[in-house]
Amino acid sequence: MNEVTEFAQIAAEAIENADKKNYALVKQTLSEFNAVDLAEILYEIDDNHLPLVYRLLPKELAAEVFVEMDSTQQEKLLAKFSDKEIKDILNELFLDDTVDIIEEMPAAIVKRILKQADKETRESINAILSYPQDSAGSIMTTEFVRLDERIEVKDAFEKIRRSGPDKETIYTCYVTDGGRKLVGIVSARTLLLSSPEDKIADIMETNVISVDTHTDKEYVAREIQRYGFLSMPVVDKENRLVGIVTVDDAMDVLREENTEDISKMSAVTPSDKPYLKTSVFKIFLNRLPWLLILMISATFTSLVISGYEEALTIFPVLFACIPMLMDTGGNAGSQSSATITRSIALGETTPRDALKVIWKELRVSLLLGAVMSIVCFAKLMLIDYWYNGNTQGLTMAQYAPSAFVVSLALLITVVIAKLIGCTLPLLAKKLRLDPAVMAGPVITTILDTLSLIIYANIALAILGN
Amino acid sequence: MNEVTEFAQIAAEAIENADKKNYALVKQTLSEFNAVDLAEILYEIDDNHLPLVYRLLPKELAAEVFVEMDSTQQEKLLAKFSDKEIKDILNELFLDDTVDIIEEMPAAIVKRILKQADKETRESINAILSYPQDSAGSIMTTEFVRLDERIEVKDAFEKIRRSGPDKETIYTCYVTDGGRKLVGIVSARTLLLSSPEDKIADIMETNVISVDTHTDKEYVAREIQRYGFLSMPVVDKENRLVGIVTVDDAMDVLREENTEDISKMSAVTPSDKPYLKTSVFKIFLNRLPWLLILMISATFTSLVISGYEEALTIFPVLFACIPMLMDTGGNAGSQSSATITRSIALGETTPRDALKVIWKELRVSLLLGAVMSIVCFAKLMLIDYWYNGNTQGLTMAQYAPSAFVVSLALLITVVIAKLIGCTLPLLAKKLRLDPAVMAGPVITTILDTLSLIIYANIALAILGN
Repeated sequence: MNEVTEFAQIAAEAIENADKKNYALVKQTLSEFNAVDLAEILYEIDDNHLPLVYRLLPKELAAEVFVEMDSTQQEKLLAKFSDKEIKDILNELFLDDTVDIIEEMPAAIVKRILKQADKETRESINAILSYPQDSAGSIMTTEFVRLDERIEVKDAFEKIRRSGPDKETIYTCYVTDGGRKLVGIVSARTLLLSSPEDKIADIMETNVISVDTHTDKEYVAREIQRYGFLSMPVVDKENRLVGIVTVDDAMDVLREENTEDISKMSAVTPSDKPYLKTSVFKIFLNRLPWLLILMISATFTSLVISGYEEALTIFPVLFACIPMLMDTGGNAGSQSSATITRSIALGETTPRDALKVIWKELRVSLLLGAVMSIVCFAKLMLIDYWYNGNTQGLTMAQYAPSAFVVSLALLITVVIAKLIGCTLPLLAKKLRLDPAVMAGPVITTILDTLSLIIYANIALAILGN
Repeated sequence: MNEVTEFAQIAAEAIENADKKNYALVKQTLSEFNAVDLAEILYEIDDNHLPLVYRLLPKELAAEVFVEMDSTQQEKLLAKFSDKEIKDILNELFLDDTVDIIEEMPAAIVKRILKQADKETRESINAILSYPQDSAGSIMTTEFVRLDERIEVKDAFEKIRRSGPDKETIYTCYVTDGGRKLVGIVSARTLLLSSPEDKIADIMETNVISVDTHTDKEYVAREIQRYGFLSMPVVDKENRLVGIVTVDDAMDVLREENTEDISKMSAVTPSDKPYLKTSVFKIFLNRLPWLLILMISATFTSLVISGYEEALTIFPVLFACIPMLMDTGGNAGSQSSATITRSIALGETTPRDALKVIWKELRVSLLLGAVMSIVCFAKLMLIDYWYNGNTQGLTMAQYAPSAFVVSLALLITVVIAKLIGCTLPLLAKKLRLDPAVMAGPVITTILDTLSLIIYANIALAILGN
């Protein structure tokens, strides 16, 4: 399963053969791979050999490989390319891929690319670049098959044969009226299974689901997944069809969003590069801010624990249970916040469901809290008392109240942890912040402080005098 | 964006109209939705009305809706269906969907379904059911277009027209030799853009990427995503083509796997139902085991903290910094474990990269630990000492060593947290356990104990006498 080693080996061989000027051999070996794997192989090739080896690829394949390379590699190649080479690649690329590349390049290279593009392409590129980041418009392609509703199936095939090679997908064709408004869709499958004389208007599906250019790209990707679409039409405010988002791009969006959510839940600034390809310093920078913020905010916990030191050291058992209480609070909170955050990300839960969620979490937390505190009390009395407390010369009557304080604090902590854990992500969503930031460490820090305050106050109320 | 309310309203109207026997109206309203949305609408309809409303759907659409419904709903309907209704639905369903349904049904219903299937279908169902859970074989469909390499493009179209309606996808056709061995693929696009007399063998792509029936389904889904495929061929041990996995199923696998990973990282037993549709008791059961395990394992932490109570209460600042140290250790560990776990899930990192990963984390952790401990020392001396320590009558000379102990413990904790955080998921993967279980709470609990031991020992070594 580990293809990386294999890729490194092929890269090494390619370099060796290139040095020996065995270009035909390099060409032959490489052309047995597909674009995705070739990009991985080229990643293993040093900067000096990269342009040479890249130029050995057949033209059409070279463009496909270019799209799959990471932006650092792309930049290295573009810097070495002649204007003609840039123009050749542009001609082979789909528009959305061109835009993806442009978004990552420094201004000087962008200028060179745009200079080589024809006027129409340049305008399309600029149109897509003008959509907000993370919008459907920013990830769509304008290269789709548009059919007129008045033509027949055989004309549609004629059109597909003519314009198909430049279209990102030909499997879903979009039917528009005279005003370029989207009125239906027809799949290549339906076309193939229809008679050549059928009118498009008669065989098209008219219950069309579409998204707006400004719809969030994650929402678009989830809808593509929910409906099992191969592509999703994107319309402007006047319902005119302006582009489509394809399923492969939707999968990439979802992978990135999932990685981002997991990063944020673990207090890491998201990075779009694979871990092993990210520099030590960059990883350090991605992790430092949250660690620092959480460390500083733990100061509140320190203040609380200092303030209550006396209450928490009345009996050794109280002191010893601090980590258990803090951890359980944090874990109980993370369980809820992660579940709700994921449910929000999947579009299953929205802030409007807040009351339903809170009511559900309240019942769950009471059940959990009850079981946990009973187990905790039993454990403290049966194991810790006989094993530990006994040896410290405490009587059962002295030990039981402490155990009761711990168990009661545990119950209340679990309930509060769950309620905060479920509310914060919903609140974040409502305020248009990212719910994922609320899950995990932020919740833990809040709950550490809260659980200690609850604990100390219960101890004071029951044991203090 | 919240469609749930809308669905509930449409469901309520459908029930009302059904009660008034306005069946035509119900039928008309519902037929404006697609299968995925209809399944959501039916979810809002009570058990008494469900069969009635469901039966109002046109036959083909009804089968599609049935596939999209959740298993509880499917079971309710199947229990009310006549044998003929079951047979009708079976005829409309794709094989992989039938298998998905069967896997969730109780034995009595499975028996009824299999009785209604014809012999060939029953054999195919049993074949797919015999593959291990989570394998490519268990999620593949056997309904794909198989082409002979010796035929021409026009024959291929003829075959697609004839058998297409029963195939899950016709967009990628698979070319096999006389021994049913996979020798190439040809897309519907290539077919459309070729001349009718072209031989399949001449236009097919021969660098075919395929997976084995026993390959893990998550790996298959990631490969489909990585290559941007619409489907992935599945071959048996003799390289004979036995099925395909389609992109929509790959997306579902990835969504489930991501949800599962996030659940496990947050100490929740994964559930395949949406949060709002899961019962309170089920949620309780999914969360209890890990909370209990983690609470019990926090006992170790309690033992440590009891054992070192004296060391940790030499100076108030040491005691007050316990939560900060524990939290930072937990956070630093989660950062690494979550990053590595995700990287493993994406197939970017494998146990073979262990040394590279550890070396990377060591450098990152030294950088982080250094910055964190300097900030911590500065904060303790500048803010806490002037603000707090001063008021407790401690001199700078008394306070500084404590601050030094805390900072040093922080540095060591961060380094150890990162090293353990990156090693455990890799170790889990190596031992064929789930890395996600290692990320999050398990790491936190281990690190709580370790960080306290480190802390107390440094305190004893420097301050104790």
